[in-house]
Amino acid sequence: MNNSPFLSVRPSRDNIISAHERVLFHGKKTPLLSSTAINEMVGCEIYFKAENFQKAGAFKFRGASNVVMGLDESYLEHGVATHSSGNHAGALALAAKLRGAKAFIVMPNTAPKIKVKAVKSYGAEVIFCEPNQKAREDTLAEVVEKENALFIHPYDNYSIIAGQATAAKEILEEKPGTDFIFVPVGGGGLASGSCLSANYFSSKTRVIGCEPAGADDAYRSLRDGKIHPSVNPKTISDGLLTSLSPKTFSILGELLERIVLVEENEIISAMRLVWERMKIIIEPSSAVPLAALYKERENFRGKKVAVIISGGNVDLDKLPWL
Amino acid sequence: MNNSPFLSVRPSRDNIISAHERVLFHGKKTPLLSSTAINEMVGCEIYFKAENFQKAGAFKFRGASNVVMGLDESYLEHGVATHSSGNHAGALALAAKLRGAKAFIVMPNTAPKIKVKAVKSYGAEVIFCEPNQKAREDTLAEVVEKENALFIHPYDNYSIIAGQATAAKEILEEKPGTDFIFVPVGGGGLASGSCLSANYFSSKTRVIGCEPAGADDAYRSLRDGKIHPSVNPKTISDGLLTSLSPKTFSILGELLERIVLVEENEIISAMRLVWERMKIIIEPSSAVPLAALYKERENFRGKKVAVIISGGNVDLDKLPWL
Repeated sequence: MNNSPFLSVRPSRDNIISAHERVLFHGKKTPLLSSTAINEMVGCEIYFKAENFQKAGAFKFRGASNVVMGLDESYLEHGVATHSSGNHAGALALAAKLRGAKAFIVMPNTAPKIKVKAVKSYGAEVIFCEPNQKAREDTLAEVVEKENALFIHPYDNYSIIAGQATAAKEILEEKPGTDFIFVPVGGGGLASGSCLSANYFSSKTRVIGCEPAGADDAYRSLRDGKIHPSVNPKTISDGLLTSLSPKTFSILGELLERIVLVEENEIISAMRLVWERMKIIIEPSSAVPLAALYKERENFRGKKVAVIISGGNVDLDKLPWL
Repeated sequence: MNNSPFLSVRPSRDNIISAHERVLFHGKKTPLLSSTAINEMVGCEIYFKAENFQKAGAFKFRGASNVVMGLDESYLEHGVATHSSGNHAGALALAAKLRGAKAFIVMPNTAPKIKVKAVKSYGAEVIFCEPNQKAREDTLAEVVEKENALFIHPYDNYSIIAGQATAAKEILEEKPGTDFIFVPVGGGGLASGSCLSANYFSSKTRVIGCEPAGADDAYRSLRDGKIHPSVNPKTISDGLLTSLSPKTFSILGELLERIVLVEENEIISAMRLVWERMKIIIEPSSAVPLAALYKERENFRGKKVAVIISGGNVDLDKLPWL
């Protein structure tokens, strides 16, 4: 553990503040958007944190750039490697490119074309595998051994979590009285980071996790007090197929308010609503929190709610309502 | 003419300044967005004026709200009326709603569903007609006579033009050294307003009009020194089907630098590029200026160029690349 270049314990308040400086070196402080029409439909005051406008099109650039910008040259000599359904892949590839390092990315062969294209456009090497957790991990292990690259896990890594925490930090700085932050839950990196930021920067703010009912492993894991792997998840939310990890499970078990589950048709409706009313492109995973908020709108009437739009990387040839 | 509640002469600098105050009463100062990737592709510094984020999803709210907010109660007694392929329709309907007035909107029966839906959602009455200039005008004349409503022309109206001018005014206030403003040309309201604002607020700034080659009536009109009607235009840019009018023809003839024509495939590529790289939804008409700038990029290398994204009202069931 002493040789690891990553944070070895749960990120502190100061770790997140330092992470934020590193993230903003290349990343963006994304805007908070709102829609009168959607506020009226839901009955509360919603701020959408537009991480679809983040570098590489998703919040994942925060974690990846925090790690890569913080590494000593020596760790980057043989490049970095990871497995990812897409957004962490693009984020890590771009962060590596910005530091002149190589990147090796293991991607499921079902990943959206636009995400694969983005990774390649940043000069990374893509290695495809079957779309399940075991194939990802096995393929990655081979790549890491062969290339001697530094493995950067998409979420079971405290430095990554500290980076993802900076989105919620920005929300709480811009809208101090926020009652709730709604976040999608895949591997739990964004949710964990958001919980930590709420805890450190705004004690009144509660974080609500949102998951597709067809990929409810985090919901079941937190309910049962043990990590359930994500087995054959069925959802169009391609960013939410992964399982919690020891680090994210531990943080969420302690700090997450609860998880709301939503159906596929609710996700598609919420996605289309945002496209039509807000004129921004969000990916299916990013529609899950709004779908959850709409479903439970009676419980949040009049509240000040932030919704993290996690990303905007959508295959424009394959829209879910067509 | 003395009974008209509209500006009777070409808007002055002060008219545009007053219009801006009225527009911002309900309208938005929209953001200027940029994309590193697109800047690199085109070779200049581009600012996209995001009027797709404007109220009712298009710049047209500026003109409509300037007129409607500036009218005496007495003029609104029987409501307002217009003909429009869509965005002026939605804008006028919303502006009327905000003042508690009725609105009667003549729309071609080919107008995008999302635009018709928006107009109806603002409580206006929609009257459909055949998709040509004569049918629009005849149908409108009937409606105006029957309802005694006040006709608000989508662009042959100096008060409308003063409102549309406020988008360029905002650009020039935020980016004082702007070399060029690229705007789409339909009836010429936005282009005329942009020319006036450039003339009053930034003498170095030139305005370039952009038109689909399949609807090149403004190009031919300015070349030949007389208004050519738009006959059977063939383009997916549904906001650019109309002809210039005496008022817009006169302003553009004097102040517009020139018009660049682009092909349909160039419009579709530019539209998709913005969706993919900027994660914002723009309608085909709004992609015409970027397509024009890209086509002539050699002439604008290193320049500071604003591109007005005129609107984001797209039928999401009918994307041009599918």
